[in-house]
Amino acid sequence: MSNPSDRPILTVDIVPLTLANGRLCVLRALRPEAPFAGRAALIGGYVHTDEDRHLGDSARRVLTAKAGLSALYVEQLSTFSGPDRDPRGWSASVAYFSLSPLTALQPALEAPGLELVPADEAGGMPFDHDTILAAALARLRGKGAYSDLPARFLEAEFTLAELHAVYEIALGETLNIDAFRRKVMERGFIEESGAKRREPGANRPSLLYQLKAGHAVFDRRM
Amino acid sequence: MSNPSDRPILTVDIVPLTLANGRLCVLRALRPEAPFAGRAALIGGYVHTDEDRHLGDSARRVLTAKAGLSALYVEQLSTFSGPDRDPRGWSASVAYFSLSPLTALQPALEAPGLELVPADEAGGMPFDHDTILAAALARLRGKGAYSDLPARFLEAEFTLAELHAVYEIALGETLNIDAFRRKVMERGFIEESGAKRREPGANRPSLLYQLKAGHAVFDRRM
Repeated sequence: MSNPSDRPILTVDIVPLTLANGRLCVLRALRPEAPFAGRAALIGGYVHTDEDRHLGDSARRVLTAKAGLSALYVEQLSTFSGPDRDPRGWSASVAYFSLSPLTALQPALEAPGLELVPADEAGGMPFDHDTILAAALARLRGKGAYSDLPARFLEAEFTLAELHAVYEIALGETLNIDAFRRKVMERGFIEESGAKRREPGANRPSLLYQLKAGHAVFDRRM
Repeated sequence: MSNPSDRPILTVDIVPLTLANGRLCVLRALRPEAPFAGRAALIGGYVHTDEDRHLGDSARRVLTAKAGLSALYVEQLSTFSGPDRDPRGWSASVAYFSLSPLTALQPALEAPGLELVPADEAGGMPFDHDTILAAALARLRGKGAYSDLPARFLEAEFTLAELHAVYEIALGETLNIDAFRRKVMERGFIEESGAKRREPGANRPSLLYQLKAGHAVFDRRM
């Protein structure tokens, strides 16, 4: 039997990633109370068994309550655990990440106690949050240069040039534009939206693309 | 604050997969006590905060205690949760899976209360164990035909023909042998072991291969 007093602490932590000023950035919160009061950390909180239908629900509730973000798609990353990661006791934290355009994080950027920092300058967070952030970046980069993940940093409609640019930033490497175009088309996760956009100074309007159905939304069940 | 009496139940469940008689199989345990006493289910148990250094440790301890398996490499799959999946209350279960040759499961096959069943005949398990098994199979198949995962069903040394056969079984599809050989070599996760083996009736001995360092062992940290 599991004696409730022996039960581990169960929390969720979220890694909201976006692109800003050409850099991969993470949204962090300044912790309002102990432990680690005043330190910048990932946005996290306890599971509420009276209202959460599952841990994905907990992550979305915490994002809404602590960052004013009610419409982010979160994907489960991995669960981190141990006796020492939280000074309050043996704990497990189910980590989630989200990839979104900067506009989707706007409510959080205007709120006090929240900050957007480049992912490669976010080190030194309390708990094992550096490890969780590193795992999120590895997931983003490790799925291969042609997964549909980086496309989630864009608005609903985008040009191929914009798609190419976010993949280069997300993956931290230069990608040959022709090979990129061919591979992305081969993978088949985008389609023409039917609209065009004329960029300033361009002679011809650019075709706009969108993620195909089934690629635009994360699995919310886990 | 998290009141311990409100804390969710935290468990681990393990999906040990192997190949037997040319089929993908899962090891299950007959539950010795309530809930669901007598039913076949995934092997699972509570986290022990006094002895487990992390949840991967919990999974290995449970496998040793309940199945006599002390040397399986487990990889974290995903965490499943909710108020209804366990009749004892709001629970989260961190699921792990292992891929191993049949010989590695031998201690469990000789123990009472354990059974090996084809994965496609394992439906009808209690809790959400059908969902967890389906997620493990999706992980195995979803990493693409040329990930290193199915190779873990083989002994340390294997022929290319054996490798081809386990991939066909694991993925449930026919794979052109020449394309398979080319792709696997391209991916670069196997290397010649330096040994050869003469199969009964063969004119020439076959080259033996092994997984390269870094591919043979799962990350045990999570």
